[in-house]
Amino acid sequence: MKIGILGSGRMGGALGRSWAAAGHEVMFAYARRPAKLSALAAETGGRAGTVAEAAEWADAVLLAVHWTRVDEVLDAAGALAGKVVLTCCVPLDEADSGLVIGPDDSGAEALARMRPKALVAACFNTNPSESFAPVFAARGQGPAPQTLVYGDARAAVDVASALARDAGFEPLEAGGLSTGRFAEPFAMVTAVLAYGTPGGPALTYRFEKLRA
Amino acid sequence: MKIGILGSGRMGGALGRSWAAAGHEVMFAYARRPAKLSALAAETGGRAGTVAEAAEWADAVLLAVHWTRVDEVLDAAGALAGKVVLTCCVPLDEADSGLVIGPDDSGAEALARMRPKALVAACFNTNPSESFAPVFAARGQGPAPQTLVYGDARAAVDVASALARDAGFEPLEAGGLSTGRFAEPFAMVTAVLAYGTPGGPALTYRFEKLRA
Repeated sequence: MKIGILGSGRMGGALGRSWAAAGHEVMFAYARRPAKLSALAAETGGRAGTVAEAAEWADAVLLAVHWTRVDEVLDAAGALAGKVVLTCCVPLDEADSGLVIGPDDSGAEALARMRPKALVAACFNTNPSESFAPVFAARGQGPAPQTLVYGDARAAVDVASALARDAGFEPLEAGGLSTGRFAEPFAMVTAVLAYGTPGGPALTYRFEKLRA
Repeated sequence: MKIGILGSGRMGGALGRSWAAAGHEVMFAYARRPAKLSALAAETGGRAGTVAEAAEWADAVLLAVHWTRVDEVLDAAGALAGKVVLTCCVPLDEADSGLVIGPDDSGAEALARMRPKALVAACFNTNPSESFAPVFAARGQGPAPQTLVYGDARAAVDVASALARDAGFEPLEAGGLSTGRFAEPFAMVTAVLAYGTPGGPALTYRFEKLRA
């Protein structure tokens, strides 16, 4: 397949390398330093080009630019009519600190506002209830499934983490209550996967870190 | 620890069972059928009570009710001052179809509006770029890390899935472009974990389904 990389930075550069090594024809376009495009082309046996050239030539394009650059890149890419466009963009603000399209509040924060003297932590909201019994039954057998734990009160996070372990989960601390803005939508992803894909609803997850 | 279960449905019932079996004292409160509370108490060697009793008695309470019931349960629970409150609530609408606090648009949908004749699919936006090279290098060794793939155009989803495999990932289909409302915030969770926790940024994830 002919793949045009619209945005040859860390995301696009790495995926273009993988796809070239897997046997695809790859054209790299749009980098802060144009020399990077020819370097990637030389390294992978691929090509370097403009956004317009890559969009015209490719069967599929990968859009891998910062959200603040999307308009500029699409202008150069043209209509892309009938083209397959793969996007790995997240609509981040310029500081990469939040979403310009997305939530600015969460149930966790709302709950803390409703009970300001309570010590609130969130946990298990990203795990289907159907997973709890099998996870508990499988304690100690292999790596434990995880549950996100987050909160502003250290004492509450510690209790949540301890009770997560007692329920057979590995707690995964993920910041303060405002993480709910992202974790509650993540819970919707787990619901889509639990209830909308084959294999039953007892969905679990594990994040792992590889050596780079 | 004395744990009050505020909402003894599927979530609270299952977690209360696990915690009782792990040696905690558990009081079950708030169920559609009051008989369920006494049944859970008998099964686990725990107690049944009202929301007010559980909130008063417990060291920590688990809030595990549908979001539409939160006001009612908090009214009964009182101020909860100084109490640890663990919430597994997601602010779902009555139909469980969306979030009442959360996003109603996504970058993926915005992009498709910008290029209505293109065939758009999203992928890799929930994977840090630092993971791509080690994932590719580890192809064929053990279960592949996953990447969410979603889109409204079948052809684009198929291309995304094939290219995900070629990059060493297992594609995990998760619905249409509106999944971006949840997956883009999920990308923020992966960023918090990749860049905000020890072990380096080459974060991967796998969802697995257990037998219930």
